[in-house]
Amino acid sequence: MSDPERPARTGFVRRIPEGDDRHRLVCGDCGFIHYENPKIVVGAVCYAPDERILLCRRNIEPRLGTWTMPAGYMELGEAAETGAAREAWEEAGADIAIESLLGVYSIPHIGQVHLIYRARLLNPETIEAGPESAELILVPWGDIPWAELSFPSVRWALTHFRDTYHQHAFPPRENPEI
Amino acid sequence: MSDPERPARTGFVRRIPEGDDRHRLVCGDCGFIHYENPKIVVGAVCYAPDERILLCRRNIEPRLGTWTMPAGYMELGEAAETGAAREAWEEAGADIAIESLLGVYSIPHIGQVHLIYRARLLNPETIEAGPESAELILVPWGDIPWAELSFPSVRWALTHFRDTYHQHAFPPRENPEI
Repeated sequence: MSDPERPARTGFVRRIPEGDDRHRLVCGDCGFIHYENPKIVVGAVCYAPDERILLCRRNIEPRLGTWTMPAGYMELGEAAETGAAREAWEEAGADIAIESLLGVYSIPHIGQVHLIYRARLLNPETIEAGPESAELILVPWGDIPWAELSFPSVRWALTHFRDTYHQHAFPPRENPEI
Repeated sequence: MSDPERPARTGFVRRIPEGDDRHRLVCGDCGFIHYENPKIVVGAVCYAPDERILLCRRNIEPRLGTWTMPAGYMELGEAAETGAAREAWEEAGADIAIESLLGVYSIPHIGQVHLIYRARLLNPETIEAGPESAELILVPWGDIPWAELSFPSVRWALTHFRDTYHQHAFPPRENPEI
């Protein structure tokens, strides 16, 4: 029964478009193909002049209450480094200078690639939690709350930060095989 | 006038969802938010044992007829390096061994990030053009058709390949400021 007051949902179906070799969401009405591609997460391990590292306690799901470096989805119209700096600003009021690419982590089962940078924190005295952060801390390496980190990629990035801390030019690390 | 035989198009409007700070495509009917994020292009500069480089003449638009390294959109469910190897196989029947990340190129005006690797071409005698390639060549450095390359990122990647050819471990390059 169609109700003229209520627009019908567009009928997306999952099929292989002509010339393709994968199933895609295709609109059965207009033929529009909705390509679903991996998303890019950009972030930075930010360190203060005294070498303490900036962590944010997540104020949002998933993993509410756990600790992460500032990171989030890259937006259209920005470069990867710009996005990492934007996330640091939004989540921690952090003004950062990006130094190098720490890691490129592919996480196929959730369709993400993480580009995580090493950055100097320029304003450690005036950082301030944004809406997505419940609390910020600046921690020395020995005090990192390893058991309460938000995601494996946070652990990888912190480890790769330590491994490359005294290097100026180095290849980015990858995620360990899972 | 609504035609009951023809489903109405879902009414997407561009507005700022609650709690967000950017315009998104939002369905006025069901509230679905269609996030548009940058797409990842993965590819590889592939070199044969005699140091010749694999180039593919594009058989598709855009830039039909110009030359590129194998590259294309990363798919859901694969890692970046797997995607680069898949593209080399699909476009050139090339079996490759990825060595290192050559470049991370952000191209904000088209919403793309390119992850381009350096790779050894394992089967130079049996490469074969796939449907998206009109022709393949293996060229020595001096014969690269610089004036007929498909995109700036092809030029960047080839240049960065040459710059780092004798290095085993190096930071990936970025795109020049535009």
